Amino acid sequence: MREVSVIGVGMIPFGKYREKTLAEIAWPAVKQAIIDAGVKKTDINAAYCGTALGGMMSGQRVLKQLGITGLPIVNVENACSSSSSAFREAWIGVGAGVYDVALVIGVEKLTKFGGGTLPLEKEDFEVAHGLVMPALYGMRAQRYMHDYGLTPEQLAKVAVKSRKHGALNPDAQFRNAVTVEEVMKARPIAEPFTLLHCCPSGDGAAAAVVCASEIAGRFSGKPVRVLASEVNSGRYMTGYRDMTTPEITVRGAHEAYELAGVGPEDVDVFEVHDAFTIAELLYYEALGLCGRGEAARLLEDGTTSLGGKKPVNPSGGLLSKGHPVGATGVAQMVEVVRQLRGECGPRQVEGARVGLTHCTGGGISGFDHGACSIHIFAN
Amino acid sequence: MREVSVIGVGMIPFGKYREKTLAEIAWPAVKQAIIDAGVKKTDINAAYCGTALGGMMSGQRVLKQLGITGLPIVNVENACSSSSSAFREAWIGVGAGVYDVALVIGVEKLTKFGGGTLPLEKEDFEVAHGLVMPALYGMRAQRYMHDYGLTPEQLAKVAVKSRKHGALNPDAQFRNAVTVEEVMKARPIAEPFTLLHCCPSGDGAAAAVVCASEIAGRFSGKPVRVLASEVNSGRYMTGYRDMTTPEITVRGAHEAYELAGVGPEDVDVFEVHDAFTIAELLYYEALGLCGRGEAARLLEDGTTSLGGKKPVNPSGGLLSKGHPVGATGVAQMVEVVRQLRGECGPRQVEGARVGLTHCTGGGISGFDHGACSIHIFAN
Repeated sequence: MREVSVIGVGMIPFGKYREKTLAEIAWPAVKQAIIDAGVKKTDINAAYCGTALGGMMSGQRVLKQLGITGLPIVNVENACSSSSSAFREAWIGVGAGVYDVALVIGVEKLTKFGGGTLPLEKEDFEVAHGLVMPALYGMRAQRYMHDYGLTPEQLAKVAVKSRKHGALNPDAQFRNAVTVEEVMKARPIAEPFTLLHCCPSGDGAAAAVVCASEIAGRFSGKPVRVLASEVNSGRYMTGYRDMTTPEITVRGAHEAYELAGVGPEDVDVFEVHDAFTIAELLYYEALGLCGRGEAARLLEDGTTSLGGKKPVNPSGGLLSKGHPVGATGVAQMVEVVRQLRGECGPRQVEGARVGLTHCTGGGISGFDHGACSIHIFAN
Repeated sequence: MREVSVIGVGMIPFGKYREKTLAEIAWPAVKQAIIDAGVKKTDINAAYCGTALGGMMSGQRVLKQLGITGLPIVNVENACSSSSSAFREAWIGVGAGVYDVALVIGVEKLTKFGGGTLPLEKEDFEVAHGLVMPALYGMRAQRYMHDYGLTPEQLAKVAVKSRKHGALNPDAQFRNAVTVEEVMKARPIAEPFTLLHCCPSGDGAAAAVVCASEIAGRFSGKPVRVLASEVNSGRYMTGYRDMTTPEITVRGAHEAYELAGVGPEDVDVFEVHDAFTIAELLYYEALGLCGRGEAARLLEDGTTSLGGKKPVNPSGGLLSKGHPVGATGVAQMVEVVRQLRGECGPRQVEGARVGLTHCTGGGISGFDHGACSIHIFAN
């Protein structure tokens, strides 16, 4: 396997684009990534499009708009990890030498489904019984509060931190800060969550151009190396499980760190899958930023805020950016690549050299997840 | 890239399984492939699940039933080429050495949508204007009849041949032969097609286990080598196009033959994407079995029938087997692998050594297709 680099990234501001088609949502992000990479359309050997609910031929519909045709286009679905799984396929294809340059797209149009409810699979036992995501993470939060003494105020501070970061990100759906009081007094969703504990729904797109590191010099884009690309599925164990341990993330992180030859102590910036406030805290622990029960301390002492030693979600995370399911994975990569290139302006993590993205989802079988992806990048 | 072999295949008889879940449709095919390969569940390093309309986390839902968990599972959508595109991703992953053994699944439950109408994307210009598949292929048939003097009787004979083959295949949805008269007198669908010119809708699943050829000896499955794996997308050209030339198949065939180091003259058995009778004839020409306008001759003189020199669709093709979209690509491979292993009983192509599968679909932008996949295998 050859080393692979990201040489171009692009995304559109996440939001509600009811009047646009899926292709219209995506193509500006793709165009931005291509220009950023400095590749010609004909340099692109293959394209992977991650989307959870975009419908048949999503990638083909997007790329037709740009005249990028006649190449292998493969659509990848892995729930929240759709475009990060698509990225891994591109990483394998380029690493193997089957392709020199590949394009990765993440796109979703959730406004297509009207309100906030997505077409979940009723064949999934848990979904059929109402264990949808806010309920699932609400239970996890309750358990964590019980086990480790996390307070409602501390939990609200995750949203406060994310929204503070998001206010600095022109691509975030929510670009205003909120207070602990505002978070706690918002509309209740699933105890202990109010609306501001939950990431907003919406539409969005993100894209990345990858190539073999050995040929990155042919193009004008600033290369950021891929140290690890990892996708995992849950174990679906029966019997007792600790619902505050996201096993799939713990296992994936171990594999990714080993592959990259770095540890959590080496990572300067993290983008993690904070679909709900509690999730971010659970992932501090699962990714090795701290021990069990210590997440609140990292939040309270500013370690994971911009300016701290281990900034998490400088983009504002899903809580600020929104979570157009298939677009999220590559959007996290866009942020980390821009951080490693020092292009993030007021939200820049100074001197960031190594970054990690973490995306997990597909709530099949309750506390195990269907797909978790972890990527590590370095400049 | 290492050479890759198929060491196990499985499928269920295609049909209508309204009472079963997607996972219940798929797992028996997967189990059959695993037993056929002689691999243990823990030998499998990754799984790819091709499905066009199975919904989120299809692969995860299937594999959970078999306790195959904790590995990378990636769902692939490419319309009719969904599972053949999934196969290509497995081929790349194993070829690259990222995995030693990978599982490929194709599955679809079309009865979920009630009748014959699938949830097509209205954002597609042609779909929005009613250019659905029977209409599109009907026009192609009209044009071919006009240009080359193909008669309605000859066109009907494609269905007669396919159903004759299908009668020998226990996995086919239709297992009875039909006459030219029956085909021509069936219910009209889109001139010149009657119902029997069109493949039936339905549910189905197929699976394959692939591994690096260099380690195939570790397992008991009989290896069949993958000589070429190719996926392409259409060019979406504006202006005049010859609607009887499936450009994407012509281009893909050239690439696949070059990669495999064989030509059409070397291929002993073909499984092609005969969603409609005319399609099979167009693909004789596109795959290089004959020149332009000569397809009817190959059909009439028995060249492409069982017992002829170049049998096409010994399985009965989509016209007999049915076309559960995401399952079709791997189901074609199941047939070709079994043919190359000499296991097809009354429909065996004697001495078959090289086989080709061709799957194309995603009718975006009319006569160009969104995804075409061609695979060449040898024993």
